[in-house]
Amino acid sequence: MKTSGIITLTTDFGLRDPYVAVMKGVILSINPDAKIVDVSHQVPPGALLHAASVIKDTITYFPHGTINVVVVDPGVGGQRRPVAIETEHYFFIGPDNGIFWPIIEEDNSPAVIHLDEKKYFLSPISDTFHGRDIFAPVAAYVSLGIDIRGMGPVIRDPGTLSFPRLKIRGNVLCGEIIRVDNFGNLITNIHRTDMEAFLQSTTPSISIEELTIKDVKHIYTDVPKGEPLALYGSSNRLEIAVREGSASDYLGLTAGEAVGMKIAVSKHN
Amino acid sequence: MKTSGIITLTTDFGLRDPYVAVMKGVILSINPDAKIVDVSHQVPPGALLHAASVIKDTITYFPHGTINVVVVDPGVGGQRRPVAIETEHYFFIGPDNGIFWPIIEEDNSPAVIHLDEKKYFLSPISDTFHGRDIFAPVAAYVSLGIDIRGMGPVIRDPGTLSFPRLKIRGNVLCGEIIRVDNFGNLITNIHRTDMEAFLQSTTPSISIEELTIKDVKHIYTDVPKGEPLALYGSSNRLEIAVREGSASDYLGLTAGEAVGMKIAVSKHN
Amino acid sequence: MKTSGIITLTTDFGLRDPYVAVMKGVILSINPDAKIVDVSHQVPPGALLHAASVIKDTITYFPHGTINVVVVDPGVGGQRRPVAIETEHYFFIGPDNGIFWPIIEEDNSPAVIHLDEKKYFLSPISDTFHGRDIFAPVAAYVSLGIDIRGMGPVIRDPGTLSFPRLKIRGNVLCGEIIRVDNFGNLITNIHRTDMEAFLQSTTPSISIEELTIKDVKHIYTDVPKGEPLALYGSSNRLEIAVREGSASDYLGLTAGEAVGMKIAVSKHN
Repeated sequence: MKTSGIITLTTDFGLRDPYVAVMKGVILSINPDAKIVDVSHQVPPGALLHAASVIKDTITYFPHGTINVVVVDPGVGGQRRPVAIETEHYFFIGPDNGIFWPIIEEDNSPAVIHLDEKKYFLSPISDTFHGRDIFAPVAAYVSLGIDIRGMGPVIRDPGTLSFPRLKIRGNVLCGEIIRVDNFGNLITNIHRTDMEAFLQSTTPSISIEELTIKDVKHIYTDVPKGEPLALYGSSNRLEIAVREGSASDYLGLTAGEAVGMKIAVSKHN
Repeated sequence: MKTSGIITLTTDFGLRDPYVAVMKGVILSINPDAKIVDVSHQVPPGALLHAASVIKDTITYFPHGTINVVVVDPGVGGQRRPVAIETEHYFFIGPDNGIFWPIIEEDNSPAVIHLDEKKYFLSPISDTFHGRDIFAPVAAYVSLGIDIRGMGPVIRDPGTLSFPRLKIRGNVLCGEIIRVDNFGNLITNIHRTDMEAFLQSTTPSISIEELTIKDVKHIYTDVPKGEPLALYGSSNRLEIAVREGSASDYLGLTAGEAVGMKIAVSKHN
Repeated sequence: MKTSGIITLTTDFGLRDPYVAVMKGVILSINPDAKIVDVSHQVPPGALLHAASVIKDTITYFPHGTINVVVVDPGVGGQRRPVAIETEHYFFIGPDNGIFWPIIEEDNSPAVIHLDEKKYFLSPISDTFHGRDIFAPVAAYVSLGIDIRGMGPVIRDPGTLSFPRLKIRGNVLCGEIIRVDNFGNLITNIHRTDMEAFLQSTTPSISIEELTIKDVKHIYTDVPKGEPLALYGSSNRLEIAVREGSASDYLGLTAGEAVGMKIAVSKHN
């Protein structure tokens, strides 16, 4: 696949420290024409599931051939392998700790390469910052058109990650909150297609903690200011929101408390 | 007007979520050579006045022909129209909710277009993320040189916004705090030219809450460390600051409490 | 030296306000082809030592000829001079308040220029925002290849900054915390080479507050989850960390409390 020349960066490094800038310096030293786009550097530290869902919801809006570097890497320096992946439309570079599993799982025939060809790394390689020493330089070489298949052997057993699955118990579809966004919207693992298949033409009743919401609305302004609603968000996931407010505040929850919380959709005739 | 190829982005999306990156992906998919500059993604949620004053204070420093996308949009999916505006020197793209009123009001003959030509949008259009589905792709097409006049009908009644006006009551000029910056400086709606016209050659006495400050200083170091002062900030607006400290902390105010607070300038002989 | 065309920005402006974007607008108005990379805009306000250590740890990863603008400037508008510096491999632009002293001190023959040639500035020059009016336009002109030696007279007495020095007292090497990163890692002024010269082949015992750590580990996973360890971080500085946790939280310290705190390394046979 031809590269778009765009490299996206997703990390849990935050923006206060110079770590992200150091990665950009390494990339631009190898390919001065690379176009670098920050996806997020505020993934909660070590939150593999959050990073995996963010990158999955984001990449389809980028040109084919875009190179996505994801560094959420609690096991840096340990046994986990550094990998480069080529799917039908995109490249991914990062640790083989399961972050890329949702992408590998859905692709027809992804190439997953164990990066072990040291000429594409900085030297020496530190034990604590593979984003700088391995992933940034490899991304820069891929953006120059170098084939990942020459960067190491193929991996047959890439790291996996258990994404929370939907459960149907009688008349109830059970999901959970996977992310809370900046507006306090509670984003679930329930897609519009799951809802439609489950509900057929009944109206849902949606419960989370002590709150019960009737029906799924189209837009925030379908309810009065300050009132909660359920709607399909921009990634077609079911979300709980509050018009001109924050659903997590409404429920008295921090983001950390909300993630993993159960949500139940009941059929209602 | 010829475009500069630069697209600025101002939103209330925050930096933790991938929403801004998604907009950049959409733009680069249409125009891989667009140069994207972030103005701020930390506009307080839904704060139209804040967004309007930020963009007004920023754009004059960009090359003519720059395209400014502003997405602070509490009514997304509702009745408000999506617009593109061409003023004497710049383009603006976003919701017609009054954010652009201070810019429209000051321009000689702005073209304000109701964006309704779907070939310049993503498809389908979501109810909740017009930044991605309408404003980003339109900005990308404008950066390719496409005339906004072909993107929909002209609007004669653009959305307005009431900017707080100065009032003169006898010997007192009354203004208010419109923004608090990262240093805790309190930025007012009183411009240097308003002050000079009001004061003529008298010395002012400036009051906010229980604090009274004599005179306007030139620089922070005109007062001892930790002391409050009034000065004209970098946009020539009157500001209350504390040398090597924070005026909002000094007054025991959060940013939210300070915005809208009255400030009185008295003549003092 | 030939410029790389890359301009890095390091400030204490934060990301909420439009100040950084204004600087980028000024740069792109002068050189539309400049490539701008943010290092950090979250230097603690006025923290010269923090800014100096961040820029020193970052620049070596950028291409030679990169232009580094650093604006941490509590004395803006006062007596301190604006400067441009050319070292063996890089350019630096900012206030002459000591931020650049660690870089000047280590270079063989740096050119330090007092910027006083107004044709490279915006006009008029404000008293409060030299980042916009002086440093951004000068950086843009340098990125176009203009020699800093034509921008003002040479300075023989650049501003200095006292970096905390290591002290050896008998069998103990004393250093201090100079920065706390986003993960809560405590970064010290003790380099790996200092440690190796001091320890020779003995094993260290490292103390900070009530915590004592035996030996320096290689990677986070050398200790159980939640346990503290000492290791050499990505800049080869001795760091105190907690596996999958935060060392500053572990010690019950805010970043502000931790910076300046003493750390003692004892030889242990």
